Amino acid sequence: MIMYRGNSLEKLFKPRNVAIYGDTSAHGKIFKRCLLFLQASAFTGNIYPVTEEYSEINGLKCFRDISSLPDAPDVILIDSTPSHIPDIVRQAGAKGIPYGIIFSPGQDGLIKEKISAELRGSGIRILGPNSQGLLNISCGIPLTYSISLPLLPEPGSHVALVSQSSSLGFACFTSAREKGVKFSYLVTTGDQVDIDDLEVAGVLLGDKEIDLIILYLEDITDGKRLLSFFRRAREKDVTVAVLKAACYGTSAFSSKYQFSGFIDEEQIWEAALRQHGVIRLRDVDEISDLAALFSLRHPPRGPRVGVISSSRGAGILMADHCRSHHLEIPELSLATQQKLKELLPSHGYHNNPVNLTSMILEEPDLFRATLEILLDEEELDVVIPVVTTSSIDLAETVAKNIMSSYQAMEKSLICCWISKGNDLDPSISLLKESDIPVFDNFEACAAALSQMVQWSCSCPYEDKSQMPSFRKVNEELKTEFTEYDAKKLLNNYGINVTREELCNNLSEAIEAAETIGYPVALKVMSPDILRKTQARVIALNLKDSEEVRNAYGRTLERAAKSNPEARISGVVVQEMLNQGLECMICARRHPVFGPVVSVGLGGIYVEFLNDRSTKLAPVSMNSAMDMIRILNGYPLIKGVWGSQSYNVESLASMVSLVSNIIHVEEDIQEINIDPVFVRITDSVVVDAFIIRR
Amino acid sequence: MIMYRGNSLEKLFKPRNVAIYGDTSAHGKIFKRCLLFLQASAFTGNIYPVTEEYSEINGLKCFRDISSLPDAPDVILIDSTPSHIPDIVRQAGAKGIPYGIIFSPGQDGLIKEKISAELRGSGIRILGPNSQGLLNISCGIPLTYSISLPLLPEPGSHVALVSQSSSLGFACFTSAREKGVKFSYLVTTGDQVDIDDLEVAGVLLGDKEIDLIILYLEDITDGKRLLSFFRRAREKDVTVAVLKAACYGTSAFSSKYQFSGFIDEEQIWEAALRQHGVIRLRDVDEISDLAALFSLRHPPRGPRVGVISSSRGAGILMADHCRSHHLEIPELSLATQQKLKELLPSHGYHNNPVNLTSMILEEPDLFRATLEILLDEEELDVVIPVVTTSSIDLAETVAKNIMSSYQAMEKSLICCWISKGNDLDPSISLLKESDIPVFDNFEACAAALSQMVQWSCSCPYEDKSQMPSFRKVNEELKTEFTEYDAKKLLNNYGINVTREELCNNLSEAIEAAETIGYPVALKVMSPDILRKTQARVIALNLKDSEEVRNAYGRTLERAAKSNPEARISGVVVQEMLNQGLECMICARRHPVFGPVVSVGLGGIYVEFLNDRSTKLAPVSMNSAMDMIRILNGYPLIKGVWGSQSYNVESLASMVSLVSNIIHVEEDIQEINIDPVFVRITDSVVVDAFIIRR
Repeated sequence: MIMYRGNSLEKLFKPRNVAIYGDTSAHGKIFKRCLLFLQASAFTGNIYPVTEEYSEINGLKCFRDISSLPDAPDVILIDSTPSHIPDIVRQAGAKGIPYGIIFSPGQDGLIKEKISAELRGSGIRILGPNSQGLLNISCGIPLTYSISLPLLPEPGSHVALVSQSSSLGFACFTSAREKGVKFSYLVTTGDQVDIDDLEVAGVLLGDKEIDLIILYLEDITDGKRLLSFFRRAREKDVTVAVLKAACYGTSAFSSKYQFSGFIDEEQIWEAALRQHGVIRLRDVDEISDLAALFSLRHPPRGPRVGVISSSRGAGILMADHCRSHHLEIPELSLATQQKLKELLPSHGYHNNPVNLTSMILEEPDLFRATLEILLDEEELDVVIPVVTTSSIDLAETVAKNIMSSYQAMEKSLICCWISKGNDLDPSISLLKESDIPVFDNFEACAAALSQMVQWSCSCPYEDKSQMPSFRKVNEELKTEFTEYDAKKLLNNYGINVTREELCNNLSEAIEAAETIGYPVALKVMSPDILRKTQARVIALNLKDSEEVRNAYGRTLERAAKSNPEARISGVVVQEMLNQGLECMICARRHPVFGPVVSVGLGGIYVEFLNDRSTKLAPVSMNSAMDMIRILNGYPLIKGVWGSQSYNVESLASMVSLVSNIIHVEEDIQEINIDPVFVRITDSVVVDAFIIRR
Repeated sequence: MIMYRGNSLEKLFKPRNVAIYGDTSAHGKIFKRCLLFLQASAFTGNIYPVTEEYSEINGLKCFRDISSLPDAPDVILIDSTPSHIPDIVRQAGAKGIPYGIIFSPGQDGLIKEKISAELRGSGIRILGPNSQGLLNISCGIPLTYSISLPLLPEPGSHVALVSQSSSLGFACFTSAREKGVKFSYLVTTGDQVDIDDLEVAGVLLGDKEIDLIILYLEDITDGKRLLSFFRRAREKDVTVAVLKAACYGTSAFSSKYQFSGFIDEEQIWEAALRQHGVIRLRDVDEISDLAALFSLRHPPRGPRVGVISSSRGAGILMADHCRSHHLEIPELSLATQQKLKELLPSHGYHNNPVNLTSMILEEPDLFRATLEILLDEEELDVVIPVVTTSSIDLAETVAKNIMSSYQAMEKSLICCWISKGNDLDPSISLLKESDIPVFDNFEACAAALSQMVQWSCSCPYEDKSQMPSFRKVNEELKTEFTEYDAKKLLNNYGINVTREELCNNLSEAIEAAETIGYPVALKVMSPDILRKTQARVIALNLKDSEEVRNAYGRTLERAAKSNPEARISGVVVQEMLNQGLECMICARRHPVFGPVVSVGLGGIYVEFLNDRSTKLAPVSMNSAMDMIRILNGYPLIKGVWGSQSYNVESLASMVSLVSNIIHVEEDIQEINIDPVFVRITDSVVVDAFIIRR
């Protein structure tokens, strides 16, 4: 029995009566397909065809228009030319129909707006336009024109698929179904003029039967809503997996100030999903692979895999692929090895991956005995039998053995079945029907298992108590920031910056230099000159007052030359830091996900290492340490043989602070610290800029 | 008509008469299966069952022993207990039978040796033991017990599969066959006591019909033979693809002197295959993916892909996966975009990836018209239609359209068909039968295409004229090398090393230091102390004679302390190099492939970049430049913004020289140069060691 907590969309998913509207101006194919599928299904309510073309169709009475319907059905399916849609929606609303599914494309913005206007007036809720509808598979109700098989009720599935793309959604559904994966719902949302993917997914969270929601996402504009859905799913122990199109394209950042491609779209999606414990899918077949693993009665408790095969080569390849996906192929315990030695021929292999040899053809029971020994081995979290036989008899025996061993033991088991052929299908089906995941290649098997193990070991959320105690500094935010202003703001939030003074004339500059101590750097401050190095308004390593004097005039001249209109707020005299490792920290406001923070090595390393770590902000210091630890360049910071060991904690603390600043200072678009010098004792910001929204 | 150039193995692949030996001590299953398959096949020769158990079986007269056969068949298939095998082989040899296939496992080394002994005596050639036999699919002849389908002659395939692992070979065969891939031969070689995978593959090179040979390799000990096979294949324009098990395991290098894991097994296989234009496969399904692409009448001429779909999402995902595999998704020409605008609805997408929208359901001809526009577009090398429909009618129309457009146009086309279902199978089969490759997921499609494009653009072999003019220095090779000896040898071959002198007493050392110029380094030379830094027998940056005096005694004391038995050959006084980028060059003799060379950044970078480039030696300077260019750290050598630009050519030249030294000096096991200082003007070896075999 399916229970919706709250009633939202219930009538859409499980309508009593359904009307199907077929406009004569449309070609009628969709209308007729819908009707046929619904009639061939387990749907028991009334079906009202609304069409001017027929008075009766497939034994059903037709109605000429919506107003003449005997009652208001729960759902109306609409196949019409786009220009007619707003009118049909209004009529349906007036009749009191609560839900409409629009198959026709919204075509252009104007028609979508008109539809929206009708919605506001009437209270009807719309799925589409450009939706291909939905399948309530548990109850056997198809509200679509997009499948060609009769839909019978298939209870017992725990997986729902919600797809913005209609045809991709149905293609994934048919493809996964072909592989034996059962879904409880498929909902395609199309152009989302009203009900969208997140609303549907949110409602499905209320279905206690559902363990796994798979989302195919295209256009996400409201990151907060997405993340809040992820959080609610986690609270309810529902796993979410996301297939996102177009992460590789151009960045959603369009800031004209974008100095470097330090954070890209792909990384932000990766971070957002990982930080919320959401599984990232990259291809359609991963949907069925993952769904298959979720059917396991005993999910893997860890990464230790035992492989068993009658082909030495197949076993080795399976082990190779596991290792390359960060799974482990541990040595078996001596007791287990001894048992295998007694059981298997001497030319087999009695450790992991176990090789039964072709002896299995003569003694098929070897398989079960070996499998049970492995399922009993404490060193293993999951056992993968790899099947390569093309013999029907042997295939059947092997499948039955796997099935019965699996049911008897309390360990995770997935099967990699390489051989194929119609004759073998019944044996493979036997396994699938017992909810044993079956893969037909090593890579997919290892990849899906690794993803599931990583997911089940992840505890994604920030520990709030670990956040720095943080209060927004009550100060009017500047409209434009020079380096000096930016560092002042950072310093107000407790971040170390270089000792420096803003000077208005040469004598102030010389006095400042004497106070700070030589050598010093001179930098002209102007909100109109952000690329100071290119404009050559910086002088470094000035060793005495004479050098300061020369540099003062020279840099100001260059500033005037580089931009005659530039407003000059002064010249900064700054201490020179000569020790430490250059890193950079960058925080930005992403149009979808809001504040993000990134850290990596700076200076020459940025150019070639392409090595950075990104998270949604804010992050705690511990979480920032994790970001730094996964950098390829981490050994350089921590110190490798023969090199300096720097103060990693001070860098992590700064990353956490910066992430909190962009979090609370909502008018800041971007904070760029490049470089920060990480030293033996502390970290100091040497240059920075801040851009207001 | 298949033509073997030379007659080798011809009778094995295409026997006139076949004997099947079934020992009563074996269980007889294999014997009976073999018999059944052969009788159900297109084989027209005589079949002689040899068994004591029956006088007649399946209508065939049985023979009690081999000697009573009426004539010598071309092949005898042997199913018996291992201990009987040597005797059976002897009898078969005595009868004059030219080929035997042994299904039974060789079990232990002793029986294999006994079989080998029989071979030497009789002239019979053996496939196996532990082979599952072979299929001559072109002629419809199964010499195996491992398939369950009747084998009819299937001419027209250009792909052969040779597998050491028998069950994996047959599993790959059935799996690829299920996907519509046709093979001409499948040969499994098993324990390879006589005929092995390379002999079989070499013979198949003589079959003019074969374009692609796929090898599954396990134990390769003779790298020279493998590489020479690759070369012959390239000469004959036959493509070779290799699936190799166990590249990830422990290295084949077992040198006790292995100072760092600078070259691993995986890299060496990668290098060996890439340098010989061999395609590297990593999973079983890649076999069918690749074979499918080889059926293309118009192979892709470049990496520019056009995508067409009726689902926006599917098109975007296809494009994403292409990009992540280094394929290009170019903008279409303005003329093409204009044509698409006139043809497609306004809410479609008229550039790459083209979106037809669901309008295709109403107007299926849109598909063909669009496809033909893309096939005509000069900006594209290959077109990928992505099909997501679940409607039978539409699927059929789309398939027919793809087929006819493909046949009419001269451009590469592969299909990504995401939707599934029994109803759709006939449409998909239609494409496959027209030799259009069909993939069911984005990743496999993009990966296989990328592999084929890369392969067709590769010209792997070294240009011999580019090799440095090189002559082996006629000098007795030392048994043991100190750093001084190693650098001397390198210098004899024209490699720059630090200026240095080997001194026998303090006054010589001081004199050397004065000549070289301060600061200098002091290093104690001993073949028994290779890890000089750990033993602290090095003194750096000595600024005057006083410092040299102190260091001289100190380092010698430490040497004595670190190893009282150490033979000291003297103390080297060496110039100090303070400028330049530390790199390292390593050359080794691999047990399978012989000399290999590797280059990468040195010093602290080794520890964290894990960034190196490996090739089989020798390499030309151009080829060494290619090795350096693909390093992640290349920008550091070439010079990035604000950093020094170093002399890359001098490093490449050194890599080429080192690769030639290990090539000609066959008694050297390992040359390790760490570091070499790459400077603005040249590259200089600062430290090195050499290990004799």
